[in-house]
Amino acid sequence: MLPDPVNLTPFFFQLQAKDGHARAGVFHTPHGTLETPVFAPVGTQATVKALTPVQVRELGATLVLANTYHLYLRPGDDLVAELGGLHSFMQWERPILTDSGGFQVFSLAGINQIDEDGVTFKSHIDGSTHRFTPEKSIQIQENLGADIIMAFDQCPEPYDRTGVEAAVTRTHAWLERCAAAKTRPDQALFGIAQGGIHADLREQSAAFVTSLDLPGYAIGGLAVGETKDEMHAILEIMDVHLPENKPRYLMGVGAPQDLINGVRRGVDIFDCVLPTRMARNEAVFLRTGERFNLRNAAFARDPRPIDDQCACYTCQHFTRAYLRHLIIAKEMLSATLLSIHNLFTLVQLTKDMRAAIVEGRFEAFARGIPGNTEYGIRNT
Amino acid sequence: MLPDPVNLTPFFFQLQAKDGHARAGVFHTPHGTLETPVFAPVGTQATVKALTPVQVRELGATLVLANTYHLYLRPGDDLVAELGGLHSFMQWERPILTDSGGFQVFSLAGINQIDEDGVTFKSHIDGSTHRFTPEKSIQIQENLGADIIMAFDQCPEPYDRTGVEAAVTRTHAWLERCAAAKTRPDQALFGIAQGGIHADLREQSAAFVTSLDLPGYAIGGLAVGETKDEMHAILEIMDVHLPENKPRYLMGVGAPQDLINGVRRGVDIFDCVLPTRMARNEAVFLRTGERFNLRNAAFARDPRPIDDQCACYTCQHFTRAYLRHLIIAKEMLSATLLSIHNLFTLVQLTKDMRAAIVEGRFEAFARGIPGNTEYGIRNT
Repeated sequence: MLPDPVNLTPFFFQLQAKDGHARAGVFHTPHGTLETPVFAPVGTQATVKALTPVQVRELGATLVLANTYHLYLRPGDDLVAELGGLHSFMQWERPILTDSGGFQVFSLAGINQIDEDGVTFKSHIDGSTHRFTPEKSIQIQENLGADIIMAFDQCPEPYDRTGVEAAVTRTHAWLERCAAAKTRPDQALFGIAQGGIHADLREQSAAFVTSLDLPGYAIGGLAVGETKDEMHAILEIMDVHLPENKPRYLMGVGAPQDLINGVRRGVDIFDCVLPTRMARNEAVFLRTGERFNLRNAAFARDPRPIDDQCACYTCQHFTRAYLRHLIIAKEMLSATLLSIHNLFTLVQLTKDMRAAIVEGRFEAFARGIPGNTEYGIRNT
Repeated sequence: MLPDPVNLTPFFFQLQAKDGHARAGVFHTPHGTLETPVFAPVGTQATVKALTPVQVRELGATLVLANTYHLYLRPGDDLVAELGGLHSFMQWERPILTDSGGFQVFSLAGINQIDEDGVTFKSHIDGSTHRFTPEKSIQIQENLGADIIMAFDQCPEPYDRTGVEAAVTRTHAWLERCAAAKTRPDQALFGIAQGGIHADLREQSAAFVTSLDLPGYAIGGLAVGETKDEMHAILEIMDVHLPENKPRYLMGVGAPQDLINGVRRGVDIFDCVLPTRMARNEAVFLRTGERFNLRNAAFARDPRPIDDQCACYTCQHFTRAYLRHLIIAKEMLSATLLSIHNLFTLVQLTKDMRAAIVEGRFEAFARGIPGNTEYGIRNT
């Protein structure tokens, strides 16, 4: 017999294996099942930049993130709703996650004014004035229609304790309003824990967000300037204080080693613009964390693929010399091919970590990747 | 028994059907058989802009054109040769055609000086000085390694009779030098007939180029400013004076109706930058010749595909509203999706014309396409 929640909601997380603190699970959504750990490519404006949905699917991605702030401004969430929602609009049939817009109104938009009720900000596109509240963020996300929607939160500067305390209080109040505003049963609202680098605030925040019975929880306010050690310490706290039977989402991370170190500390879901942004800046990474820029003249006659261990379309077909030629000749195809490689590297890494967890050899797998021994986990 | 040439050369053209002047054939090359009529997408810099080779193949293209002038300058034909030739370099396994560089050194490069031996020109990239001769063009094209290579010619302003006469004389002398310089048996050298809009010069040029027994012949110097009626008149002359048993290639054409009008007058092969260039300028065409720019606000909420009669990936998946959103949001994916549509439209049109020719219903097919009745063929 499956437990009750499966009969009440289309969302249900099953923890399938644990190996140390690393977890392998499945998260059921109305658009299919996510196998975790999972990395979500970012499709800010309802497209993973430079890739068709077929290419995103073929490199193995299952979950895509889209941005509420950007889609609200352009083309407008009402338009997306009118055209059948994000899945239909962007032709991504698998699960989608939307952020709340909170991070962007604080970081990207023009002068913003925050009060207890919400945030007033100026569009980065045309300077027009807009206002987001928790209720407005949920309304937009309901129009967009992603499977996973995020609570409207405030992401503070991580070292400023007073500022973090205020952000935690506000984030908790806004979470309750988001939960109350939500109407669609086919969307899962994830709560976000804040708290900067402060252990006690993180514990308080974890306790509060998990006091609401939500289908998943996110760890916000990391990868915003703190050190890796600080990030890892917070992840270890969250691992203890978040429930085992719900997925954990580390927002805005990361690089290959950040994924390994996150999974090692109990994280299930990741997203980051890094792989596609690097690709448009002509740079690639390997699973080992090694990075290089293909514009470098050293690659002009290099007949090797980016990574001779990589099974992506780009590495199976194209030389570094050809990719460099595309870059020098300003051909759009370079962004496409480099994005495929960088995304595949992360997606494949999550799949390999999952297999290692299921087979009880996660640490051996992780330590077998050169460059990934620097951060030992502390609470094992 | 197949005729002798099949045993002597990997190139062999078989005329399979004629319907009026329209022809259906097959052209055998070392990288596969081309079914004609055929439209070749242009991959100037060893990439069909914004598309992977898989996407080019999946939209049905069989022949791709690459540019000798551009690849000589960047990345260099020696580098392409070192990396195994163009097929390997750009990962296009089907036939490739390279132009001679002649058109570009006259039109695109900086100040050029022409003499009987060749052309000295300045690179459009860095202003450096270079020299092309017929022998140099062939040498570069042998380094690139396309299946079909083109004679180095001079494309004159079509109305200036004195200039055209000089260009015809020079083009003929250069063709003999190209044929003499050619060494690779796995490449087919096509001769190019010039002559502007002057019937007698076209006849002279056709007579000369066909006096050399080459595997194919091109009609150059059209689509360079003359009227459609003038182009059609010249095509009708060439149809009479080019041998039936060799493929005819109309260079730099075209739009959907230009293909129909070319096939109607005995042309087998076409190429043009139009479909991909229009796509990058946010415009699409339909088979009927109708064109529109998707940036237009009229498409903001339009739930229809570009063309509800079109079977391309773009039309099967995406609304005009989504494509316009990509354009307004400056997303690279718009160039990819619009290129797929425009190229598919031309490639599918050639396939449908071929089927109509084989079945003896070409004129009915052509006249069934709205907007394509304006140019009657004169010499039927």
